[in-house]
Amino acid sequence: MNARVFKPEAYLIEQQPYYEPISSEIELFEAAYHNQLPLLLKGPTGCGKTRFMEHMAWRLQRPLITVSCHDDLTASDLVGRFLVSGGDTVWVDGPLARAVRHGGICYLDEIVEARKDTTVVIHPLADDRRVLPIEKLGEILVSPAEFCLAMSYNPGYQSVLKDLKQSTRQRFVALEFDYPSPNLEAKIIGNETQIDAAVADKLVKFAHMTRHLKGNGLEEGASTRLLVHAAKLIVSGVNPNLACRSAIAQALTDDSEMLLAINELSVSLF
Amino acid sequence: MNARVFKPEAYLIEQQPYYEPISSEIELFEAAYHNQLPLLLKGPTGCGKTRFMEHMAWRLQRPLITVSCHDDLTASDLVGRFLVSGGDTVWVDGPLARAVRHGGICYLDEIVEARKDTTVVIHPLADDRRVLPIEKLGEILVSPAEFCLAMSYNPGYQSVLKDLKQSTRQRFVALEFDYPSPNLEAKIIGNETQIDAAVADKLVKFAHMTRHLKGNGLEEGASTRLLVHAAKLIVSGVNPNLACRSAIAQALTDDSEMLLAINELSVSLF
Amino acid sequence: MNARVFKPEAYLIEQQPYYEPISSEIELFEAAYHNQLPLLLKGPTGCGKTRFMEHMAWRLQRPLITVSCHDDLTASDLVGRFLVSGGDTVWVDGPLARAVRHGGICYLDEIVEARKDTTVVIHPLADDRRVLPIEKLGEILVSPAEFCLAMSYNPGYQSVLKDLKQSTRQRFVALEFDYPSPNLEAKIIGNETQIDAAVADKLVKFAHMTRHLKGNGLEEGASTRLLVHAAKLIVSGVNPNLACRSAIAQALTDDSEMLLAINELSVSLF
Amino acid sequence: MNARVFKPEAYLIEQQPYYEPISSEIELFEAAYHNQLPLLLKGPTGCGKTRFMEHMAWRLQRPLITVSCHDDLTASDLVGRFLVSGGDTVWVDGPLARAVRHGGICYLDEIVEARKDTTVVIHPLADDRRVLPIEKLGEILVSPAEFCLAMSYNPGYQSVLKDLKQSTRQRFVALEFDYPSPNLEAKIIGNETQIDAAVADKLVKFAHMTRHLKGNGLEEGASTRLLVHAAKLIVSGVNPNLACRSAIAQALTDDSEMLLAINELSVSLF
Amino acid sequence: MNARVFKPEAYLIEQQPYYEPISSEIELFEAAYHNQLPLLLKGPTGCGKTRFMEHMAWRLQRPLITVSCHDDLTASDLVGRFLVSGGDTVWVDGPLARAVRHGGICYLDEIVEARKDTTVVIHPLADDRRVLPIEKLGEILVSPAEFCLAMSYNPGYQSVLKDLKQSTRQRFVALEFDYPSPNLEAKIIGNETQIDAAVADKLVKFAHMTRHLKGNGLEEGASTRLLVHAAKLIVSGVNPNLACRSAIAQALTDDSEMLLAINELSVSLF
Amino acid sequence: MNARVFKPEAYLIEQQPYYEPISSEIELFEAAYHNQLPLLLKGPTGCGKTRFMEHMAWRLQRPLITVSCHDDLTASDLVGRFLVSGGDTVWVDGPLARAVRHGGICYLDEIVEARKDTTVVIHPLADDRRVLPIEKLGEILVSPAEFCLAMSYNPGYQSVLKDLKQSTRQRFVALEFDYPSPNLEAKIIGNETQIDAAVADKLVKFAHMTRHLKGNGLEEGASTRLLVHAAKLIVSGVNPNLACRSAIAQALTDDSEMLLAINELSVSLF
Repeated sequence: MNARVFKPEAYLIEQQPYYEPISSEIELFEAAYHNQLPLLLKGPTGCGKTRFMEHMAWRLQRPLITVSCHDDLTASDLVGRFLVSGGDTVWVDGPLARAVRHGGICYLDEIVEARKDTTVVIHPLADDRRVLPIEKLGEILVSPAEFCLAMSYNPGYQSVLKDLKQSTRQRFVALEFDYPSPNLEAKIIGNETQIDAAVADKLVKFAHMTRHLKGNGLEEGASTRLLVHAAKLIVSGVNPNLACRSAIAQALTDDSEMLLAINELSVSLF
Repeated sequence: MNARVFKPEAYLIEQQPYYEPISSEIELFEAAYHNQLPLLLKGPTGCGKTRFMEHMAWRLQRPLITVSCHDDLTASDLVGRFLVSGGDTVWVDGPLARAVRHGGICYLDEIVEARKDTTVVIHPLADDRRVLPIEKLGEILVSPAEFCLAMSYNPGYQSVLKDLKQSTRQRFVALEFDYPSPNLEAKIIGNETQIDAAVADKLVKFAHMTRHLKGNGLEEGASTRLLVHAAKLIVSGVNPNLACRSAIAQALTDDSEMLLAINELSVSLF
Repeated sequence: MNARVFKPEAYLIEQQPYYEPISSEIELFEAAYHNQLPLLLKGPTGCGKTRFMEHMAWRLQRPLITVSCHDDLTASDLVGRFLVSGGDTVWVDGPLARAVRHGGICYLDEIVEARKDTTVVIHPLADDRRVLPIEKLGEILVSPAEFCLAMSYNPGYQSVLKDLKQSTRQRFVALEFDYPSPNLEAKIIGNETQIDAAVADKLVKFAHMTRHLKGNGLEEGASTRLLVHAAKLIVSGVNPNLACRSAIAQALTDDSEMLLAINELSVSLF
Repeated sequence: MNARVFKPEAYLIEQQPYYEPISSEIELFEAAYHNQLPLLLKGPTGCGKTRFMEHMAWRLQRPLITVSCHDDLTASDLVGRFLVSGGDTVWVDGPLARAVRHGGICYLDEIVEARKDTTVVIHPLADDRRVLPIEKLGEILVSPAEFCLAMSYNPGYQSVLKDLKQSTRQRFVALEFDYPSPNLEAKIIGNETQIDAAVADKLVKFAHMTRHLKGNGLEEGASTRLLVHAAKLIVSGVNPNLACRSAIAQALTDDSEMLLAINELSVSLF
Repeated sequence: MNARVFKPEAYLIEQQPYYEPISSEIELFEAAYHNQLPLLLKGPTGCGKTRFMEHMAWRLQRPLITVSCHDDLTASDLVGRFLVSGGDTVWVDGPLARAVRHGGICYLDEIVEARKDTTVVIHPLADDRRVLPIEKLGEILVSPAEFCLAMSYNPGYQSVLKDLKQSTRQRFVALEFDYPSPNLEAKIIGNETQIDAAVADKLVKFAHMTRHLKGNGLEEGASTRLLVHAAKLIVSGVNPNLACRSAIAQALTDDSEMLLAINELSVSLF
Repeated sequence: MNARVFKPEAYLIEQQPYYEPISSEIELFEAAYHNQLPLLLKGPTGCGKTRFMEHMAWRLQRPLITVSCHDDLTASDLVGRFLVSGGDTVWVDGPLARAVRHGGICYLDEIVEARKDTTVVIHPLADDRRVLPIEKLGEILVSPAEFCLAMSYNPGYQSVLKDLKQSTRQRFVALEFDYPSPNLEAKIIGNETQIDAAVADKLVKFAHMTRHLKGNGLEEGASTRLLVHAAKLIVSGVNPNLACRSAIAQALTDDSEMLLAINELSVSLF
């Protein structure tokens, strides 16, 4: 029952992750990758950006190192630091340096959450120099052609305080993501949960209703991920309205009036 | 007279914790648990969320590791850190890594109090990857099926500064908690304190009076926990009005006019 | 002439501290203590809360460990930390863990001054679990029945920034403190300083005059402690008006007009 | 030409520091000292508070340990900390613990500049307990009768952010300081610099002119210290107007119009 | 496939970096360099400042040490620090000290992002003293004639909070950079990507359209770097409009209306 | 080509630094120095304050230790700290302690940039006690007569946040600095660069034009230092208008209209 531990050499994705392309994002990623240009994935939460990265890492057969960015992620957390071992200080690569050294893909999830020093540390990697200076070692790592830098952000959250500087933005090729088309989304839900096609269609309809409420009381609409959650609960025998309420409505908002309204939407469908 | 010390292997709850379900929360928890979906418990303070988690941990026979979140809880506090021992640095798992490694339940109490990096560190555990990257070890822990992530928060406290990001919310199945129905609440008080049923009923009535004052001078009404406190004092021989004042009214507010008003309510009952 | 050093085992109060009860606070404390409920002492500065705690610790024959809370008190300061000794790291209990381990009384003075993580760390100790998780040891301390948690705060200082959260408040039985009645206060002053009863009465009158100015130019009125200070100076031969000015008026305010007004009050009495 | 180093045992003031009392401050200090009450010195900068403390330390033949308070002074800076030496951690007393241990006088200069934790750490020393808990050692230092706690602040600077809390103020006996009377101030200047009595009188007149400007363009008037500076420059042959400008006017303000006005005042005198 | 590592001695640029001068910036740099005056490069992102520095380092045959500045870059990061090795502390030069010691060029990229202490640490290097005090060693490094200090910033980003102090600015000779003339820019794109001259011309036209939108909804116009990105994607077979959208429009803005407008501009060209 | 390293004993200025006095600042400095009074140098950037200090250090034959102040300069950076060496902690003096110990001149450049704790640490050195308490050693350093404390600041930058406290100001004798008279300034430029006297005169005229713009679009006018920069470029063959633009106008401002206006001024002269 113990957790499985794997080491960096095992950051390779072995089995093809299920991914349904919504546009030409796969071709665009490959063109940028082969031109050694860094990538910026834009789109709302839960629409498949992380899954897409896993799919591309599998396609290109490169190890994928994902870093969830946050306010307290320091440049050292990315590049590496010295640790004391047996009385001596030993250098330990951070995830970014590891990705550069092994020609992997480094994916910085929600980059706008990072502190400015994290964002700046990738600048020399994200232009045609493609180098990572490790000041503390007095070294410069030169990326192999296989290394790829990618990052994601959700433009919907962009605020004055949490914005990408132009000197950062203007180094990346951007890929736009959005929710899949209704048919595709129902297909994805079915594939992930083996739920009835009819119920999957209703869930997608329900999702669209919530997405129309974005900006009218909801910060975001239901993501594909939430539909999968609800479908799983329904397959396990939970009443569809309770499943929609627990897995979708309550995940979207705490406002009691909005919750009532959204529940009425689900009752109208199930 | 010394405190009893127990080790992680003893995080198992051995005796069934007393818990009265208020709705279908037990079934919903089990459905989410068996689908390996993370859980979010919403509800006011003192209504039994922590007790519910202890009950479920006992039901599922999994160790329960509870973390009270706060502003200064770092990602390292959750994941682990290196400590120096005998001149060497030794890795010590944090509570989250321990729960993942042993297939336990990790319960993050009052998650909105946590810093953003704590919230972000659980993202890869809270989607279908179910992994915990330990950057400092260069390892990725893959959760066993038995691992469960749960967190609580009180929507009543939600402010602009302390809100869950959509990219966090949209990973969890939510369970709603509220105060029990009058009969059930009186039964709980009686069970915990062996107080007279008539006095328990009066305490519940008193609680409802204070709950109606929520938003009209009180931030919160009296929780079930406070009723149990007052009942214990009464059983020990404290005058019911003094018990209500000390254990309930003074715990709710410092405002002298509100205190007078609440005391009049208790005097009208006892 | 050197300071006397004493060790934790000596935190027991050996001689009965002088304390005059103002209401049923002793009985209420004992009822809560025997029901293993934590205590919150509310009241203005200098009215005897600390002395009361020393009295109760003596009554119950438990060691008393007092912690003055402040902005920089960390959870580690309370719970404990690792120190390096002879090359190894050794765990050293903080005052809270020490109190739990030895079944003592831990008194957190001015709790609202503490950082949020200090307040949160006591949550599992302050509900019916009565445990102190020591994350850094991977241990859970279970309190013996003798352990008692108490904390104080002055509702007069309560501000939006420095307030107790409902999830903290709703765990404690509250005891209200205020200045003693005139007769009792004069008796206390006499007992502490052997001053003339007539002068003690005048000091109490003077104190009441300043207490009426609370909210009208004074943040607080004179506490019993300040009356004792003035009485000591008078017994040492200082002119009563100068004693009132130095020990009371100047301790209350820096405002030159208020100082004039308060001095006129003392001149009218002495 | 090297600096002289002296150790704590040498904190005793050997030669009588020159001090001219302005009121009954010496008697009041002694009464408070013998009643073991802590002292608060209030008054503007440069009016002799530090010199007074040196004088009292000499009178009472106690070592004087002065700490200039500031925003970054931690509780550990006052109480002490562990240092590593030869692989072990060794405890080193801070100035406050040193003063308690050796029965000295600890003088906290400009206490309102200190962080809240510094202020709080002195609470148990500043009431009738007169103890200094050293949490990190698990020890409590009990002050000998000879120990004295004193602190200074300038009420003129008092702001909302930098104010003494009532729970701190209401522990101290306050001594008020102000500039000496004209005759006394001229005597002091003459004593410190051997300047002509006539010039000393003019300097005092000049000082009074600037003190009338307080609140009308000047934050503070010229202190006695500045008069001594100007007198020293004049004795060294500097032109009196240039001396007043450099040692007094420029020390008071940067405002060019105020500087002009103050220079005209000095020209009218010299 | 592993990254190439090189050491400080290899900071020399071996091959001539392609650079098209836009004015007399090369002569001006050389005049300042030979007079040992520090240099400030002003200009928008992506217009070639970094490439210019590489070109000058190659011309002058000096090692080039580039530091990307950010909020968390400390003075120690630039000057150096002690590291523990084999039980002893060993001094390790930072990039600035390394550049001074070896007579290299230290280039501080985006200096306004740095903390004030970083900016101040260069003051003694940036006036005629040309020294770097290393306080922690008690040493002063005197720059050899070959050492050169350069820094860049983008005046467009200048805000009240992130401004260069006059005491910093007034130490540097400034070089102005801007986008190249249309012909030159097309030549650069062709040289970097081997794209058709006609398409390169269209890309430059497109860039000018976006540059006219600066201040009218765009923070910045498309840089030369973005044109090179789009050209690379086009050469790889990506549709020119998709290439302009992904590599240029999406890199400039997230605003959906601006994106529509910019896309119409590209459609009008391709 | 390597940098020259020199040790503290070599902080003596060996050759007379070129300095043209603008008023009686040399005499005033010497009078203050011999009376052991600390000095405050006020004046705009680039007008020669640092050069004056080097000149005085040479005149008095005392080592000069300069510290550029900034937000992150701690009291420990000035006073000293413990470093680990061979397993033991060794005390290392900071620049201030070094200056006191060796009777040198400590010059704190731009003192208002320093944190409050830096400013406070110099208080006991800057009054008649002339001592530096080293709390961490439990030592007090008594300054020898030769020690001198000096600091500079630019009143033009003075803001509410960055102001000297009265308790700091009122310890120093102030010296006022300003730009030299036209003839003197031309002489200085000629002496530093060997430029034609006629061109030097024009540069001074140009500087005066920019100084009249102070407060009308410019934060500061051109300092003498900038004139020397421009002169050096002109001597190296750079066109005078380009030299004025690069070395002066661009160093003063980024505002394009101001730049145009200033360039017209230079074109009118050269």
